Amino acid sequence: MPALHDADSRPGLLVPADRPDRGRPVAPSSGTWRPLGIGEVTIDGGFWADLQQLNATAMIAHCEAWIEQMGWIGNFDAAVQGYLPERRRGREFSDSEIYKLLEAMSWEVGRTGDADLEARLEALVARVAAAQDADGYLNTRFGRPGQGARYSDLQWGHELYCFGHLIQAGVARARTHGTDELVRVAIRAADHVCDVFGPNDNQGVCGHPEIEVALVELYRLTGERRYLDQARRFVERRGHGVLGDIELGRQYFQDDQPVRETTVMTGHAVRALSLASAAAGLAIEDDDTELLAAITLQTVNTLARRTYLTGGMGAHHEGESFGTDHELPPDRAYSETCAGVASVMLNHRLLLATGRSEHADAVERTLYNVDATSPAADGRAFYYTNTLQQRTPGTVPEADVASARASSSLRAPWFEVSCCPTNVTRTVASLGAYVATVDDDGVQVHQYAPSTVRTRVGDGGDVVLRIETAYPVDGNIRVTVLEGPRTPWTLSLRVPAWARGATLAAGGERHDAEPGYAAVTRAFEPGEVVELDLPVAARWTWPDARVDAVRGQVAVERGPLVLCLESTDLGASVNTAVVRTDVPPVDDAGEVKVVVSTLDVEDTGWPYGEHGAPDGPGAVRGTVDHGLVSLIPYQQWANRGPSTMRVWMPTRD
Amino acid sequence: MPALHDADSRPGLLVPADRPDRGRPVAPSSGTWRPLGIGEVTIDGGFWADLQQLNATAMIAHCEAWIEQMGWIGNFDAAVQGYLPERRRGREFSDSEIYKLLEAMSWEVGRTGDADLEARLEALVARVAAAQDADGYLNTRFGRPGQGARYSDLQWGHELYCFGHLIQAGVARARTHGTDELVRVAIRAADHVCDVFGPNDNQGVCGHPEIEVALVELYRLTGERRYLDQARRFVERRGHGVLGDIELGRQYFQDDQPVRETTVMTGHAVRALSLASAAAGLAIEDDDTELLAAITLQTVNTLARRTYLTGGMGAHHEGESFGTDHELPPDRAYSETCAGVASVMLNHRLLLATGRSEHADAVERTLYNVDATSPAADGRAFYYTNTLQQRTPGTVPEADVASARASSSLRAPWFEVSCCPTNVTRTVASLGAYVATVDDDGVQVHQYAPSTVRTRVGDGGDVVLRIETAYPVDGNIRVTVLEGPRTPWTLSLRVPAWARGATLAAGGERHDAEPGYAAVTRAFEPGEVVELDLPVAARWTWPDARVDAVRGQVAVERGPLVLCLESTDLGASVNTAVVRTDVPPVDDAGEVKVVVSTLDVEDTGWPYGEHGAPDGPGAVRGTVDHGLVSLIPYQQWANRGPSTMRVWMPTRD
Repeated sequence: MPALHDADSRPGLLVPADRPDRGRPVAPSSGTWRPLGIGEVTIDGGFWADLQQLNATAMIAHCEAWIEQMGWIGNFDAAVQGYLPERRRGREFSDSEIYKLLEAMSWEVGRTGDADLEARLEALVARVAAAQDADGYLNTRFGRPGQGARYSDLQWGHELYCFGHLIQAGVARARTHGTDELVRVAIRAADHVCDVFGPNDNQGVCGHPEIEVALVELYRLTGERRYLDQARRFVERRGHGVLGDIELGRQYFQDDQPVRETTVMTGHAVRALSLASAAAGLAIEDDDTELLAAITLQTVNTLARRTYLTGGMGAHHEGESFGTDHELPPDRAYSETCAGVASVMLNHRLLLATGRSEHADAVERTLYNVDATSPAADGRAFYYTNTLQQRTPGTVPEADVASARASSSLRAPWFEVSCCPTNVTRTVASLGAYVATVDDDGVQVHQYAPSTVRTRVGDGGDVVLRIETAYPVDGNIRVTVLEGPRTPWTLSLRVPAWARGATLAAGGERHDAEPGYAAVTRAFEPGEVVELDLPVAARWTWPDARVDAVRGQVAVERGPLVLCLESTDLGASVNTAVVRTDVPPVDDAGEVKVVVSTLDVEDTGWPYGEHGAPDGPGAVRGTVDHGLVSLIPYQQWANRGPSTMRVWMPTRD
Repeated sequence: MPALHDADSRPGLLVPADRPDRGRPVAPSSGTWRPLGIGEVTIDGGFWADLQQLNATAMIAHCEAWIEQMGWIGNFDAAVQGYLPERRRGREFSDSEIYKLLEAMSWEVGRTGDADLEARLEALVARVAAAQDADGYLNTRFGRPGQGARYSDLQWGHELYCFGHLIQAGVARARTHGTDELVRVAIRAADHVCDVFGPNDNQGVCGHPEIEVALVELYRLTGERRYLDQARRFVERRGHGVLGDIELGRQYFQDDQPVRETTVMTGHAVRALSLASAAAGLAIEDDDTELLAAITLQTVNTLARRTYLTGGMGAHHEGESFGTDHELPPDRAYSETCAGVASVMLNHRLLLATGRSEHADAVERTLYNVDATSPAADGRAFYYTNTLQQRTPGTVPEADVASARASSSLRAPWFEVSCCPTNVTRTVASLGAYVATVDDDGVQVHQYAPSTVRTRVGDGGDVVLRIETAYPVDGNIRVTVLEGPRTPWTLSLRVPAWARGATLAAGGERHDAEPGYAAVTRAFEPGEVVELDLPVAARWTWPDARVDAVRGQVAVERGPLVLCLESTDLGASVNTAVVRTDVPPVDDAGEVKVVVSTLDVEDTGWPYGEHGAPDGPGAVRGTVDHGLVSLIPYQQWANRGPSTMRVWMPTRD
């Protein structure tokens, strides 16, 4: 393990500086690259700093207010006061929203040392801790007179899922603060799980994977082998019909085939991604190369065949699930925000394990176009699903009412099933961890934002990098080596797969930089600059010929951003919009325009028939030219009121 | 009302011949055209006779066996024996499957007089009747100690839905046999409903419309105004949030807006179609022209914007619901068989009310391509959903296991929710009723099959028509007037909207026949022939430009049949098939072939990018020419084992 940078001055990170997992969401014991913690990377400008600021000033507090308003944290108080089940509010997994929020608050306190937030965190933890049973069990929905018995509904009860998020919160807290009440509560819960679901005990698994990935990380935190063994037990049991059949089919919860035999993801997207993340961890910890190869294969295949342009996953509303290969309807994209969060987590793990740039590409694409799409500009409303095409303007959700999951084209303040807002907050608070990694030979930079990276390379000494960039608006990324070893080491900068024509300038020379990692190996002088230029200008993007749903349509991307056409800019519904592809996108420093027309279609009744025949389908009487029309980043759509929107635009020809 | 033809010789139809509703599924008291009953139309050859024969020899008995095997009829026995709720089997609506089957058996006994089937019908009715409470209530799921209270779950309990199907069975029995135990049970149930849900009583409605359309027809049977009043009450209450909100939204059960204000159908397709059918009946009986106009408008709009080429309705698996306008993904078509059944019923009602041929077109299209697609060639397995594109071959459902609704690309013998098989049987048994209508001036023939039609026109006297045709294989339809009034009357033959170039020959002359109705007014001589020639040869069919999901794709239709490309004929997966449209479909007396190639697509990883670029989407390396490949009627697909299939084929250009 690398020695770590000296203690950070900020009060949030109280963990001893020599802890190798300090500030890290994921801390594998081996792999191609080693992660950095949120204390080693400071993002201090640009898009992601703004989003972290929004998280700090709005999103986290918004979630706190809603878990109170919905009574979900009140369930813990009611448990202590003996008022359950009468006063129980919310769905069976509502406890987990408190835990996800506690994880977010832990990262955020670790990042900023915010004393007020620390106090709120501790107060919330106290209410949770008070409800824990003596044996470590903790759930407001099960186990009391008048409630279902503990683990009586493993298919849908979500008890182990809730524990998974509790443990992830505990791990985050331990790595940013050290042992405290939250950590103790999480460990008691984990010990309880190991006691109940051991090799000779309850042979069940949870209908929603999550406990597995949490137990892997708890093992990494504590070194306690029983947590890893229990994670393996859960992962290996699954896939043999242990949960029983359901109307959606066993593949809904990945119980139709063992994860090690799965070649492409199926069923509920968040569940599949969480299970794969856990299995990737197991593979690393136990040096199970076969399992790692299986998880890599299924992830790569899923990216190639079952992923939207945005990085979004889940083509079916029914079952919130993956479709079959190349079945990717833009207007019925489910692309759940939480699947975006889970995909980032999985791809980050595979990046660390394999060093393959396509996983960092997937992290970037998904962060910009799914995770960052969910929150509204004010941080007080969220998308649950992320459609790529909106045919009818939605209605403004009531500010004080929790919505169904996918009921509107506008972001809603909260949901009856409200995993997405809290999942976004914990991701945004820990974003620093995705920026860079190290190995014995150097530093790899994966995500570009104005930031400072402080780490140590091998035994060679401290490295401090300053990254300056206006990315993704501008493609120039300037990395200054402020400190570094006196011996040669390697600085690697990711070149995204789309960035054809990228160049790297270092040591007075400029070279073409192919997609993957552009590496410079030198004994850098303090102050020496490496400059990467990525061609971020707007470009046409075409789909694989097998994606039937967007045949004859084209999208526009700019750098890592997927753009979209919104009726707000078109001045008309986008439903009949067509784009001219013989005129390249006009890109004026990020203001992108394309030539758009709308079809004037006659309603002729039955919509199928002979071209131009009297009973033929909606005849096109002509087109209305709109000239050059602005496209906006997809992540920003619907921030200007109800609208229609499309990412894929039919070509005029 | 017209006088009816003299008593039919077959033993099934015991209803007095002077009853104007004899043998009729729908018997409105006014309208443009009057329906004929199943005793007046005998289909004795061709596709529909074969299907009626399959119904008689396989489908009905198959359903009988499964309702026994699943314990659904056993629930009634258990009710009598006091073993409920312990021994209750099946979902909350399982009672209704017995009722739908009783309706099918009633029509079938009426059609054929089958003594054995009559005995089975009576035995089944006795088991149902024994479970009816003294006050008319009858449901095996509610009302006993340990069960939910009566009407305690109007949203999902389906009690009134079940009564609706019981009443429809009773009406069928009364119109084909006369009053007996089934009719009495149905009327007792209807009286109970009117007692409980009257103007000053329970103000609820059922989560699934069905009671309304049944009560309208019971009014027509009995002349009892209270049934019509109760139907109107249920229809008018709905749409004001009376059922409360659910995650799928109130539109799921049409409780978001009054049916009279609805301009296009939304929510659960079967529910919407059933409600519209009831409202159409109310409009006719109460001469409510505004309501009839509203129902006609929403039906016409739904046909123009929310209906698949097959006539199938329901674009979303989630909520089994309509999508938005022009949102019609072929690979996610839900197109529930029961929605096909309900659409036939609604369009038949609107045809009778308005005389608009588009409703008869919709009946024909839906009968051939949805209702007839559901049953397997052996009548012992059924589709629940009817996708227009199958990307992966399914697995053969186990013969003895009830499937989930949409789990396979192969028909399943039964379902946990098994509305579709019984709905198909009742439709097929009563098919004769859709063939022809009368008015004071003549006879209108809507559906073409070898058949004999016996009726009376105005006061003018008996008409007997003999229809000879090999339709839809051949487009020649030869109608011989065997008997008719001595004074001029009008024979009208429907020309489907697709039949451009049709001709009608009568009285030695041949004329062009435009879509709509081709009419001949004469004092026909006995033996005189009218001949309609419909151009059934295979034709290309293109979609409305707004149906994004099939952009750049074309289908082939032949007469009323939608054709499809199946991997069984292609010898390869249809997923990458493309068709040449510059070579017209070859049509050798119904054997249709088109020129098909498959694309050889390289898997390049991320499936979006620049055409031809290294990271571009799945590059097309070349094509494999398959030459002329057979298309088969969509209704017959997957009768030769697991396959991939598509109705819409990308064009090669």
